[in-house]
Amino acid sequence: MAIIIDGKKCSEEIRNELKQKTEELIKSKGIKPGLALLLVGDNPASALYVKNKAKACEEIGYNSVIVELPEDTSEKTVLNYIEKWNKDESIHGILVQLPLPKQINEQKVILSILPEKDVDGFHPINMGRLVLGLPGFIPCTPAGIQYLLNKYEIPLKGKHVVVVGRSNIVGKPIANLLYQKNSKANAIVTICHTATNDITYYTRQADVLIAAVGVPRLIKSESIKDGATIIDVGINRIKDASTKTGYRLVGDVDYNDVYNKIHAITPVPGGVGPMTIAMLLRNTYLSAVGLDKYE
Amino acid sequence: MAIIIDGKKCSEEIRNELKQKTEELIKSKGIKPGLALLLVGDNPASALYVKNKAKACEEIGYNSVIVELPEDTSEKTVLNYIEKWNKDESIHGILVQLPLPKQINEQKVILSILPEKDVDGFHPINMGRLVLGLPGFIPCTPAGIQYLLNKYEIPLKGKHVVVVGRSNIVGKPIANLLYQKNSKANAIVTICHTATNDITYYTRQADVLIAAVGVPRLIKSESIKDGATIIDVGINRIKDASTKTGYRLVGDVDYNDVYNKIHAITPVPGGVGPMTIAMLLRNTYLSAVGLDKYE
Repeated sequence: MAIIIDGKKCSEEIRNELKQKTEELIKSKGIKPGLALLLVGDNPASALYVKNKAKACEEIGYNSVIVELPEDTSEKTVLNYIEKWNKDESIHGILVQLPLPKQINEQKVILSILPEKDVDGFHPINMGRLVLGLPGFIPCTPAGIQYLLNKYEIPLKGKHVVVVGRSNIVGKPIANLLYQKNSKANAIVTICHTATNDITYYTRQADVLIAAVGVPRLIKSESIKDGATIIDVGINRIKDASTKTGYRLVGDVDYNDVYNKIHAITPVPGGVGPMTIAMLLRNTYLSAVGLDKYE
Repeated sequence: MAIIIDGKKCSEEIRNELKQKTEELIKSKGIKPGLALLLVGDNPASALYVKNKAKACEEIGYNSVIVELPEDTSEKTVLNYIEKWNKDESIHGILVQLPLPKQINEQKVILSILPEKDVDGFHPINMGRLVLGLPGFIPCTPAGIQYLLNKYEIPLKGKHVVVVGRSNIVGKPIANLLYQKNSKANAIVTICHTATNDITYYTRQADVLIAAVGVPRLIKSESIKDGATIIDVGINRIKDASTKTGYRLVGDVDYNDVYNKIHAITPVPGGVGPMTIAMLLRNTYLSAVGLDKYE
């Protein structure tokens, strides 16, 4: 029986812990963690993400500010909001929901966020700090993956982690996190991607396989090693006439096909997904108390 | 017959090209690239490196400033020099020779260098930019390795690069450079290190093996694949009674042992070593003309 890595449960535990810590922080220091959320345009998925993040803030006692701007908003307007929040002491984290409309330079916006408030961990200086093993904000999804691996005591030291996908928000940061010389990592890491002819050659070697490609059920039983741990970052919609909505969510890994061969797996949904918001809340708390003071 | 990758020759070609470009830059824009070099303490190896770098500047028409400070110099003094050079428009690159004495926080010093003048590419923001695929200063040794691989037309796209060593100045940046989605990289990259039990398992898979471990002749013929390309970053002194000095330099790879099995190799000395200064000069030129304008 494979272990099902319960991201939903872990996420709840983290939120409960943060809720308690936040109460203490308000009492002892009068600091209430504050997150500013900026949404530009009317992408319904983005709108839902932002609402969920704000709701999660509220539930654990954070202050959250949502600004929703129309699709034709200028870059200048976005930069003005960020500048204001950069200076606002009650705002500890700034999150700009991506993607942004075409007239706005995403990179310029990310660079304008004060690195100390970059709770998404997308600023290059935070990415550099992650690579160099220095304290800084770690992007939420990779931070969540590492948390789950450590929580479920999946051995990493000297093990072979294979990351499929080289996105800036998942593949690159998780690859760099897991080869670091510390007790929460120390793995040998391979990163493969679209230019890989025989992906199976690599995935079969993985003690821990991290799939972040966005192709529904790409990875089958024959592509993995006996006893591997599977971290499935994919969230893909596929048609399913038997559901109310007419679709359902599946990962990049064929869950049923691999289940009997593996040690552990994150389900989709309920695996990596719920960890992302938990880590966002954690980063915001870290920012409120100061990164160094967090144990 | 294996191809011997001639880093010395490539380095000379780059310097000659930069010398010519510098003449043009002085004529057309009145800009003379300037490099400030800071040496603290009396480590003879460090002193030699700094002198060689200054000499290389002089040879191609750059302005160079060397400041040598005693071993007991305070952190404040070092930071004051950097602050001065950050503001000095005639200085385009700032290099602090590492390691620094114990009383000086190296990380703090690196962070104080204006990223736009960080020609060593050690500032976290430059490391982050490298990982994210954004323009920025690339650390000199990895930049030199990539240059050699491209110059000798070693295929990288879809090939397996294995990096042995995870230092901040070689292993981490070269691993991150070579999986990037561009025509000069696009490899599958594995990074292994001291926590790897069976290093041979990985090195044997390498189409391109990059050894940066600092163990003399660690990698033998049986540890590599037929037809591999070997980039040997190690520069190790071993005793040799037959030489005047009583020692000689060898790499991390047993050159004679692997020679008949491989496609190409960088010799030690004369391979990666000479590229480091060439890339430092190149970064300084890039800084003088502005990164974007460099083709």
